[in-house]
Amino acid sequence: MLVHTTQLRVRYAETDAQGIVHHSCYPIWFEEGRSAFLRQLELPYSQWEAQGVLVVVAELHLRFLLPARYEDVLQIETRLVRLKRRLLEFSYRILHADGRVLAEGNSRHLLMDRAGRTIALPEDLLLNLQQRLQQHAGGMP
Amino acid sequence: MLVHTTQLRVRYAETDAQGIVHHSCYPIWFEEGRSAFLRQLELPYSQWEAQGVLVVVAELHLRFLLPARYEDVLQIETRLVRLKRRLLEFSYRILHADGRVLAEGNSRHLLMDRAGRTIALPEDLLLNLQQRLQQHAGGMP
Amino acid sequence: MLVHTTQLRVRYAETDAQGIVHHSCYPIWFEEGRSAFLRQLELPYSQWEAQGVLVVVAELHLRFLLPARYEDVLQIETRLVRLKRRLLEFSYRILHADGRVLAEGNSRHLLMDRAGRTIALPEDLLLNLQQRLQQHAGGMP
Amino acid sequence: MLVHTTQLRVRYAETDAQGIVHHSCYPIWFEEGRSAFLRQLELPYSQWEAQGVLVVVAELHLRFLLPARYEDVLQIETRLVRLKRRLLEFSYRILHADGRVLAEGNSRHLLMDRAGRTIALPEDLLLNLQQRLQQHAGGMP
Repeated sequence: MLVHTTQLRVRYAETDAQGIVHHSCYPIWFEEGRSAFLRQLELPYSQWEAQGVLVVVAELHLRFLLPARYEDVLQIETRLVRLKRRLLEFSYRILHADGRVLAEGNSRHLLMDRAGRTIALPEDLLLNLQQRLQQHAGGMP
Repeated sequence: MLVHTTQLRVRYAETDAQGIVHHSCYPIWFEEGRSAFLRQLELPYSQWEAQGVLVVVAELHLRFLLPARYEDVLQIETRLVRLKRRLLEFSYRILHADGRVLAEGNSRHLLMDRAGRTIALPEDLLLNLQQRLQQHAGGMP
Repeated sequence: MLVHTTQLRVRYAETDAQGIVHHSCYPIWFEEGRSAFLRQLELPYSQWEAQGVLVVVAELHLRFLLPARYEDVLQIETRLVRLKRRLLEFSYRILHADGRVLAEGNSRHLLMDRAGRTIALPEDLLLNLQQRLQQHAGGMP
Repeated sequence: MLVHTTQLRVRYAETDAQGIVHHSCYPIWFEEGRSAFLRQLELPYSQWEAQGVLVVVAELHLRFLLPARYEDVLQIETRLVRLKRRLLEFSYRILHADGRVLAEGNSRHLLMDRAGRTIALPEDLLLNLQQRLQQHAGGMP
């Protein structure tokens, strides 16, 4: 299964009064994982929206194992675990630079148009996505 | 089962380029639901932390049913569904003022001290919590 | 000069590792002050955008005097200090429930259409705004 | 004057219903500029706090010239424009990858201890900072 890894550094604004990263930042990091995943396939999400295809979050699950702190360097591993015409599912792991897994989770997504109606993934985008997934299957940098 | 309802109005800063509330705001709203729940029991969470008891999020699950928009008035329903010495579990529903359920979810929490060590809920806080839950069981405003 | 006061309670997610509210939350509170100001005049900002009038921030100035903390109850005082066809200016004070001023600032705003072009405030909206400002001049609750 | 440049890519969560980045994200980016500036001098801010030296924001000024959008690649230019024992001042410019200046601003900072008392910059930290500023004066990568 294809996995893409992107890196980020914890921002001060992401911490809370417990001295650790607030849990609401992880959905944002997962989203950055998805964004980087799609850019890697040369199908950046900004192009999806320009085409009128909005990916919305239908379900989100997160497990928090260890805290992240200001200036920590983190790896976000993103996998596309399900690709259907009306459903996308991704899974994620957040790792500290020292290798410890800090959090993991997954998200399920539906597709909408600008009017808020559920739509199917347009044929060309689906084919494009499947093709690029195969091209990168040998290894994603 | 005891349920507490608190109200909020969607902020402009909570919206995203899809024109709806970004999904990362819902964990924050759930947290505000927990905060209001504990204030209602006269055991505000700021007092827990002043006593050195940190409630951390171990797991979070969210289902998004309908979008929320800027200036919408929302109800957050919060239930304490499990109370153990080393585990708290809450469930939530976010409702629009018109009665539609926009999202639901639940969260599991562990307790930590300032050094990041897992602890049990101090005896007095646990008793206090159980007592107040019973007092309010007849009806929470 | 017309002043509107709205109240909010500090969220846990708004704190940072210094144990106080992160400074990036104050622009959001100012914005909530503006939103409440316009709702008070029965010209809610959601209606402006529905009409295609986007108010954008051109300049922002903040002075931080004292920290705010989790669960603090705050008052946001908002004043419209300048109303021109192409420029709005607001000023703000954030006060603690105990009366201390925590922060103050001001913001200048331009008007845009959906295409990002600078526009003038539509005649009807300007008149409406001026009229309601006068009606409330005697006292804003 | 020493200038440090760091790069970031706009996150989806940073956009708002106007389709552009919400103005409350710029103070966070400025802060990331400061963080990168200090890391470059090998005096990361996480070490300041570990030593009990808290840098707090006393004043913030921002001018917004052009909007930033999702996936835009931005440069943050950060300059330390004033270094006194009880006052730090930084200035910033946010540039789009295409060279346009999107925003500029500056921030003034006081120093506090963990108890919230105003302090002076400890002698060793001040000397260290001055020394490294001189070393990098020839050119900051």
